[in-house]
Amino acid sequence: MTQIHPPARLLMGPGPIDADPRVLRAMAAPLVGQFDPFMTDTMTEAMGLWRTVWDTANEQTFLVDGTARAGIEAALVSLLEPGDRVLVPVFGRFGHLLAEICGRAGAEVHTIETEWGTVFDPGQVEDAVRRVRPRVVAVVHGDTSTTMAQPLAELGRIAHEHDALLYVDATATLGGNAFHTDEWGIDAATAGLQKCLGGPSGSAPVTLSPAAVAAIDRRKQVEAGLRTADDVAPRGAPIVSNYLDLAQIMEYWGPRRLNHHTEATSMLYAARECARLLTAEGVGTAVARHVRHGAAMLAGVRGLGLEVYGDVGHKMHNVVAVRIPDRVDGDAVRGALLEDFGIEIGTSFGPLHGVVWRIGTMGFNARRDAVLTTLAALEHELRRAGHPTEPGSGVSAALASYEANRDVGP
Amino acid sequence: MTQIHPPARLLMGPGPIDADPRVLRAMAAPLVGQFDPFMTDTMTEAMGLWRTVWDTANEQTFLVDGTARAGIEAALVSLLEPGDRVLVPVFGRFGHLLAEICGRAGAEVHTIETEWGTVFDPGQVEDAVRRVRPRVVAVVHGDTSTTMAQPLAELGRIAHEHDALLYVDATATLGGNAFHTDEWGIDAATAGLQKCLGGPSGSAPVTLSPAAVAAIDRRKQVEAGLRTADDVAPRGAPIVSNYLDLAQIMEYWGPRRLNHHTEATSMLYAARECARLLTAEGVGTAVARHVRHGAAMLAGVRGLGLEVYGDVGHKMHNVVAVRIPDRVDGDAVRGALLEDFGIEIGTSFGPLHGVVWRIGTMGFNARRDAVLTTLAALEHELRRAGHPTEPGSGVSAALASYEANRDVGP
Repeated sequence: MTQIHPPARLLMGPGPIDADPRVLRAMAAPLVGQFDPFMTDTMTEAMGLWRTVWDTANEQTFLVDGTARAGIEAALVSLLEPGDRVLVPVFGRFGHLLAEICGRAGAEVHTIETEWGTVFDPGQVEDAVRRVRPRVVAVVHGDTSTTMAQPLAELGRIAHEHDALLYVDATATLGGNAFHTDEWGIDAATAGLQKCLGGPSGSAPVTLSPAAVAAIDRRKQVEAGLRTADDVAPRGAPIVSNYLDLAQIMEYWGPRRLNHHTEATSMLYAARECARLLTAEGVGTAVARHVRHGAAMLAGVRGLGLEVYGDVGHKMHNVVAVRIPDRVDGDAVRGALLEDFGIEIGTSFGPLHGVVWRIGTMGFNARRDAVLTTLAALEHELRRAGHPTEPGSGVSAALASYEANRDVGP
Repeated sequence: MTQIHPPARLLMGPGPIDADPRVLRAMAAPLVGQFDPFMTDTMTEAMGLWRTVWDTANEQTFLVDGTARAGIEAALVSLLEPGDRVLVPVFGRFGHLLAEICGRAGAEVHTIETEWGTVFDPGQVEDAVRRVRPRVVAVVHGDTSTTMAQPLAELGRIAHEHDALLYVDATATLGGNAFHTDEWGIDAATAGLQKCLGGPSGSAPVTLSPAAVAAIDRRKQVEAGLRTADDVAPRGAPIVSNYLDLAQIMEYWGPRRLNHHTEATSMLYAARECARLLTAEGVGTAVARHVRHGAAMLAGVRGLGLEVYGDVGHKMHNVVAVRIPDRVDGDAVRGALLEDFGIEIGTSFGPLHGVVWRIGTMGFNARRDAVLTTLAALEHELRRAGHPTEPGSGVSAALASYEANRDVGP
């Protein structure tokens, strides 16, 4: 058996996407010990970089060692005690995931739903909050299953006016769509590296407001074998997970340096590099880049005569869902794109499976050559699938969009 | 801020240790999509390689995306229902950790303890099993806090004769000490990459016997949004974690390819490379290498006049605990070793803190040059700390051990 040798791919689905090569190289750096001064300095440095990405002053801004889903569960299981009411506005598959995780944590889960392809009006959320009186409102920012981005600007105020905390899953949006943790009154937010942030899956950035920290810290139970006389017993139900216990993880990332898990050093290096590249570019500039290349892809698929799914005015910048034309086998076209061009576009979940493709332009792949190559290849495969379009129509429309948006972003 | 640039280190503590450079390079390989044929083939290939490392025919041999602790919690939270009795024989800190995780999962936890630096006689475990009648016996194989390795060969029989399942935490031993999953009747075992396996922390190899799979599968609850009419409701309490739910993770690694988390691709590459290198060397040969270099380090520290802690006959091959000489400041010597030579040796937890250093010889660092360099540097720092030994005594003793054990291993 030989060393790993993946085929060349251009990953233009809803994520994961190709990691920035600089992030991959950072992971090849040698390890250091768990409490080496370089290690703890790097952890502290990563906290600062991620504060910039999250646009927050939150002291408690760090990484959970797992995929985006580990970050989601860590936040929810640490915030919610069994029996707590939680409101989950669901507008796609990942809303259902939040509800599922809250339910397993023993919370009393209340959901409101809106038709797939749409988002909630803040008034709908406010009505539900008034009715449910939840302890936590948990919402996805961008749900890749529908490509919609829920406007968040008013949700923090709504939650706080009713004594609730606001949790946001920003996995699919952070770095490619505006995200202002403090300005929007978000109490807890989590992400993963594998979408707009340009890294591999396996590290989950988290940020917690002082109110969220207080809610979590009162439940802190330092584990047997490390507990000291100064460690008070938890008030409220102890957090059921040890691995995803943010109260202990904060003590690991903080000055106490409480021994918890052994930090996944290579993933820390990756997460640091993602944030370093993003802050060097400027987070606002990176978002503008996603706006520009997302607009070009949108124009391009429309140029190919494909119909775009959902409320385009609320689409994430970094992914578009296009209806699979009648009499075209969506999976066959996806397979041919991969086989002939090494390009991956996305299939879909649940009610949209077989109905739409999802095409991403994010992170390292929010690039002109990636957009144009994908459109040219897709035109070719549509023709082979018996759905010809005017030659060059996708690429031309994208080029026109680039020209029209030349001042929008890089 | 510049790219990551760790200082040169030789990590000779109880782990993490320097990753094999080939493993670090594997992580720099480009990503592929989550259900790319290459991705699913690589997952399947990794399962096969890890079966060889675990010495098992268990179909369910795969990776959990997190550190070793994530693997431990995944196994225990998936096996144990609230109210289940679990017996944890505790002979060091990591036994307390198992008990802590079981308790948080709602199990009724029974522990037996033996003095630190010793292990259990199988009869002691059998007596406790007979008394407690647990559903699961959960034990650490090698507890790095004391350097002891619990003999496991009879524990499977004992557990099974009393209708219990046997879980083993093999984080600190796998690859450097004999481990025979099937022969020893182990139902569930987990590890991490950062000790004898030569990789970075962040991926947790797991293997499950058919009996463990049956116990977990009956609790399977496919999450909302993915559930089909064929998915029966869980019998028994649903697994409280979604992220660490082995029933769903098995469906992700199995032919159904149920969408769960986005696999941490770079860590998968790392875990595949660790297992590839180990199986190419031969797992038995790798263990013999740990025996030989561990013996040399043991001889070397004794040659320096240092007293070895605990029951040396039950020591793991890959780590030795040595008593810090009277009037020597243990942390000052460790700091000087790091500062002057870039060499890390380990401090200790709880009752052994300030009493012993822990010195490892594992994975990529189970090497002659690493052993001899560490001994030469330690001699120097002992002298500076006012504890002179005969010049060259550590290195000479190690060289004599290498010569005596030339037929033992590479």
